[in-house]
Amino acid sequence: MPATYSTNMRSKFPILAILLEIVIIILYGVFITYDDGASPGITSNNTTADELYKAYPSFQDVHVMIFVGFGFLMTFLKRYGFSSVGFNLLIAAFGLQWGTLMQGWLHHLKDGQIKVNIFSLINADFSTATVLISFGAVLGKTSPVQLLIMTLLEITIFAVNEHLVTETLKAKDVGASMTIHAFGAYFGLVVARVLHRPGLQDSQENEGSEYHSDLFAMIGTLFLWMFWPSFNSAIVESPDGQYRAIINTYYSLAACVLTAYALSCLVDKKGKLNMVHIQNATLAGGVAAGTSADMMIFPYGGLLIGFIAGIVSTVGFKYLTPILDSKLKLHDTCGVHNLHGLPGIIGGLAGVIGAAMANKGLYGNSLYSTFPELETRTAIQQAGYQAAGLGASLALALIGGLITGLILRIPIWAQPPDQNCFDDHIYWEVPDSENDHNELLSSEHGKHKTNAEA
Amino acid sequence: MPATYSTNMRSKFPILAILLEIVIIILYGVFITYDDGASPGITSNNTTADELYKAYPSFQDVHVMIFVGFGFLMTFLKRYGFSSVGFNLLIAAFGLQWGTLMQGWLHHLKDGQIKVNIFSLINADFSTATVLISFGAVLGKTSPVQLLIMTLLEITIFAVNEHLVTETLKAKDVGASMTIHAFGAYFGLVVARVLHRPGLQDSQENEGSEYHSDLFAMIGTLFLWMFWPSFNSAIVESPDGQYRAIINTYYSLAACVLTAYALSCLVDKKGKLNMVHIQNATLAGGVAAGTSADMMIFPYGGLLIGFIAGIVSTVGFKYLTPILDSKLKLHDTCGVHNLHGLPGIIGGLAGVIGAAMANKGLYGNSLYSTFPELETRTAIQQAGYQAAGLGASLALALIGGLITGLILRIPIWAQPPDQNCFDDHIYWEVPDSENDHNELLSSEHGKHKTNAEA
Amino acid sequence: MPATYSTNMRSKFPILAILLEIVIIILYGVFITYDDGASPGITSNNTTADELYKAYPSFQDVHVMIFVGFGFLMTFLKRYGFSSVGFNLLIAAFGLQWGTLMQGWLHHLKDGQIKVNIFSLINADFSTATVLISFGAVLGKTSPVQLLIMTLLEITIFAVNEHLVTETLKAKDVGASMTIHAFGAYFGLVVARVLHRPGLQDSQENEGSEYHSDLFAMIGTLFLWMFWPSFNSAIVESPDGQYRAIINTYYSLAACVLTAYALSCLVDKKGKLNMVHIQNATLAGGVAAGTSADMMIFPYGGLLIGFIAGIVSTVGFKYLTPILDSKLKLHDTCGVHNLHGLPGIIGGLAGVIGAAMANKGLYGNSLYSTFPELETRTAIQQAGYQAAGLGASLALALIGGLITGLILRIPIWAQPPDQNCFDDHIYWEVPDSENDHNELLSSEHGKHKTNAEA
Repeated sequence: MPATYSTNMRSKFPILAILLEIVIIILYGVFITYDDGASPGITSNNTTADELYKAYPSFQDVHVMIFVGFGFLMTFLKRYGFSSVGFNLLIAAFGLQWGTLMQGWLHHLKDGQIKVNIFSLINADFSTATVLISFGAVLGKTSPVQLLIMTLLEITIFAVNEHLVTETLKAKDVGASMTIHAFGAYFGLVVARVLHRPGLQDSQENEGSEYHSDLFAMIGTLFLWMFWPSFNSAIVESPDGQYRAIINTYYSLAACVLTAYALSCLVDKKGKLNMVHIQNATLAGGVAAGTSADMMIFPYGGLLIGFIAGIVSTVGFKYLTPILDSKLKLHDTCGVHNLHGLPGIIGGLAGVIGAAMANKGLYGNSLYSTFPELETRTAIQQAGYQAAGLGASLALALIGGLITGLILRIPIWAQPPDQNCFDDHIYWEVPDSENDHNELLSSEHGKHKTNAEA
Repeated sequence: MPATYSTNMRSKFPILAILLEIVIIILYGVFITYDDGASPGITSNNTTADELYKAYPSFQDVHVMIFVGFGFLMTFLKRYGFSSVGFNLLIAAFGLQWGTLMQGWLHHLKDGQIKVNIFSLINADFSTATVLISFGAVLGKTSPVQLLIMTLLEITIFAVNEHLVTETLKAKDVGASMTIHAFGAYFGLVVARVLHRPGLQDSQENEGSEYHSDLFAMIGTLFLWMFWPSFNSAIVESPDGQYRAIINTYYSLAACVLTAYALSCLVDKKGKLNMVHIQNATLAGGVAAGTSADMMIFPYGGLLIGFIAGIVSTVGFKYLTPILDSKLKLHDTCGVHNLHGLPGIIGGLAGVIGAAMANKGLYGNSLYSTFPELETRTAIQQAGYQAAGLGASLALALIGGLITGLILRIPIWAQPPDQNCFDDHIYWEVPDSENDHNELLSSEHGKHKTNAEA
Repeated sequence: MPATYSTNMRSKFPILAILLEIVIIILYGVFITYDDGASPGITSNNTTADELYKAYPSFQDVHVMIFVGFGFLMTFLKRYGFSSVGFNLLIAAFGLQWGTLMQGWLHHLKDGQIKVNIFSLINADFSTATVLISFGAVLGKTSPVQLLIMTLLEITIFAVNEHLVTETLKAKDVGASMTIHAFGAYFGLVVARVLHRPGLQDSQENEGSEYHSDLFAMIGTLFLWMFWPSFNSAIVESPDGQYRAIINTYYSLAACVLTAYALSCLVDKKGKLNMVHIQNATLAGGVAAGTSADMMIFPYGGLLIGFIAGIVSTVGFKYLTPILDSKLKLHDTCGVHNLHGLPGIIGGLAGVIGAAMANKGLYGNSLYSTFPELETRTAIQQAGYQAAGLGASLALALIGGLITGLILRIPIWAQPPDQNCFDDHIYWEVPDSENDHNELLSSEHGKHKTNAEA
């Protein structure tokens, strides 16, 4: 970035944020109202109240994944913790407002009104996950202004793709391996490619973890890991399918831990475990079980998916990420390609296989509640539509990421210069822990580099 | 404090804590029994079991807010983390026991018995929130002995005020903007004023954050933020009102994040974000949506409340807190005035407006389940009673805080001397990380000030 | 350990982990299928769906206790945080897979198939808790290879004991004071005794906490504390019993906090609180309320159990642990004897008393839903069987721990040498925060010992 462009956000960021919020409030005033369950005057609220009580715990689990899970997962960077957890909150808080509108306009508009209920809240949270995944690819290299713009654009494109995959193609994707994970990862990778900075090695010393930042990241990992069964099951409609989604995801995640640990040890020359793998690859089983979560894959099928995902993800971190960086100029800060990209594709493919194997013998009376399209399609046709859904998600991610990247590259969005990447100081007041040290250390010791210094 | 008074707690604190616990056990033996749902021998437990399953997830969310939310929010101080999270646990654990009794005696005494159920647990947790808010105002300046006494007194006065507002005045306050947030904040501010220490600048160097203490605080912020919809909806009785409380609070919090970030950036000379604002002002939307949460404010109304609360709270932190400190000798360690005080008043006023606008056209058949008093009052009358509820909460907070402050000022409660405020060492065994450093640093470098040193 | 044995895990650990996972997948393929609720084709899923919705929030609470609760509780060690939270995840992820099989084979095998449902998941999580408790006793002194073997053996023996206590003896143990807490603690203590290392003082300097590691541990403490009512109630069958289990545990934990704080202060010469006690002894009330949680002990009974448990646990930490270490060569890293051992015995004894006092006057029509065995036994007989259950748990823990310890002592499992105990570096790539310091500190200052150095 030319030094002539200011990184000072004082005018740009507040104006953008407040403007967006005012527009949102006006649009909500025009379009959004309560669904029946939250509306007074409906004689019997029993059914809708039941809907709330059944879905609310899953909603809160997803909520924790979005805000604590993604937020803390990215705090592994030693000098970028404020931005990781702070911008995560900003993106998600804005994204869920915009997601409610986009998803409402595309899926739920009736008489010019969008009626929100507990599933609107869950889906709005879901829509922010795409941006948070992409955020992982550009982490440390973008300003809050850029992130707000990316949120606006990506959720728009996500909602279009979601509509295309689940409404037009009628592909199944209950845990969103394709529409959220693969989409978010490749969208973010393309944005990162367009914003590629040849001079990034200047701030490379900041792009690492330290002991306690790795422990903070484990808070994120664990809440994602624990609540992933809720993520994959929250919007499944049939009760038995929802039950399966929980069980399958539970076992997929468990198996994934074993292979992620095993491979982390195996690929290291000294046989030591690597925190990057433990923080990320242990979650690949949740991503990969997404599309097929409610299908009749049986617990051993869940285990198998997790087994494979843990291996692929860890190997990706070790061997693929460095190649993408050096050969394709794809600098992927958090390795979202290994956590969401590859496992998302595995998940999509598992869905293809699961659909191809669907039949009355396996699903009995629940065949049509799990696969509504099989009333008019053959299982093989449905498998084809599943594959088309995966393809569509990848295609829209690439196109959307390209457009978004080009817009974000316009040098007026307070981007950080190369030497200030991965450093909170450029956008945050950081407590000056130097004072204490300076009292201690006489000046001849030179510069003490700590978290609290740019 | 005169140096002649001992800060050693070895006799005072254990005697007080054990004595209180013994008295509590005796009172529970006399007064407390299980409500029907938890009692055996009732033929049909179905209804009461349903009550448990519906309310239990919200109870656990509130529980997390009280213990992890409040506890970690206050760990931002660099040398006071043990006390923040530790005394928070102490206050809340004692407070919920006393709150069960006080609320039971005032609201639920039948035939000399208090029957506890899941709502007793939620309300007991709520009662401790008032003390934890006040704790934020006096954080770092009070001993555990003082805090136990404050808990006893404040919950007593809270329960009286709660009875006055919700039972006598019959004002609505489902999310407790008035009875918990405004009450707790002004109670704490008055206590802080009465305990004012002119010599506090001696320990001012401890009264700041460091990089990782700010990240610990974000754990508290996020769990409060995520679970606030549960807080505001947990005790709403009508199903549609409960549904609305969740939706309205969700959107209020989301909008509040945008304005808190925008204003944090705007009020800073260099346009940088400030962790104090992010940790606190992002939550003001939850406080301000409290009283009106179950009313027909619509999602855009929720957004609007959050929009305003985020601005007021951030501006309060930037401009009002320093003035209160210097002009009124109101030293408010955590800025509870900006997080709970002002937003609590906004919440009370939103309740006044919401009540004034209540009518059959808006609420249909649910008018009387949401506003039971409208069977005998006009909406404008109810609005007046809402305003009276806000006034009563503020009045009892001021009187209660004054009495409590005067009692706490008696110099026998092991108060910390000025130079040891905001420092864990005075009440905790702190691991001596100095040993390592001492090995490293020759003595001529003077005193290395770290967390692990008094 | 002789230096000739390698601590390099590169071959042993991955082979063992992958081999175990492959065997698990095969066994799941043969034995495990979905229970009715998750099976398609069953005409009415209403009942089983209700089962899921009622138990799922408790399952997730237990899940958080296992992965975040136990995981972070053990991060108190300043240089062993990666291993604490990381091996905890590894043990639990493998353990729940094996636990599903063992518990299925012993309790739920029908027509050669184990049908898993939400209670299978809860019970599988429970089974891992035994190993995580034992892990606390050997923390810092064992390799991941040893831990996988211990998980395999301990869950096998646990499942046998659980079958013996609850199915053969038909003793009640809803919150598992005996079968999980006492069993896990004494099993671990015996393993620690067999693996005793006379030369451990070499790494003693690592066996301590630092300021922030103590705060990380409080994350674990609080999530365990908050969700313990879910742990003690999750598998209670009668609705009123489940309700009581929640209420009793809630109050027991609250009282326990007061006595743990009081005693922590009282036993310290300077009257200061000790983080070890606060992190651990505050939880003893949850352990001790386990067996009798669903009995008619009334809230004051819950308080009384917590009151006693908090005292016993804190006194145990202060006076008993050093004696066990020096006299009996029982080095108990986390003090699991005080948190799980002694309170587990108290819990078992409370169950004996609770059973002895069971009668129709107290329990009415629920007598047989709470105590099914009283249809054929007297209350005193049931009390005797409760005592037998406690005795069986202790006996199998001692025998199982002895066998396991002897196997783990075989010097081929990549054990850490004495001087590398309690240090992440031996099994983990640890981020080198030394670089920064080295730039700062000239070499004459000698060796700077930090977390990031072996």
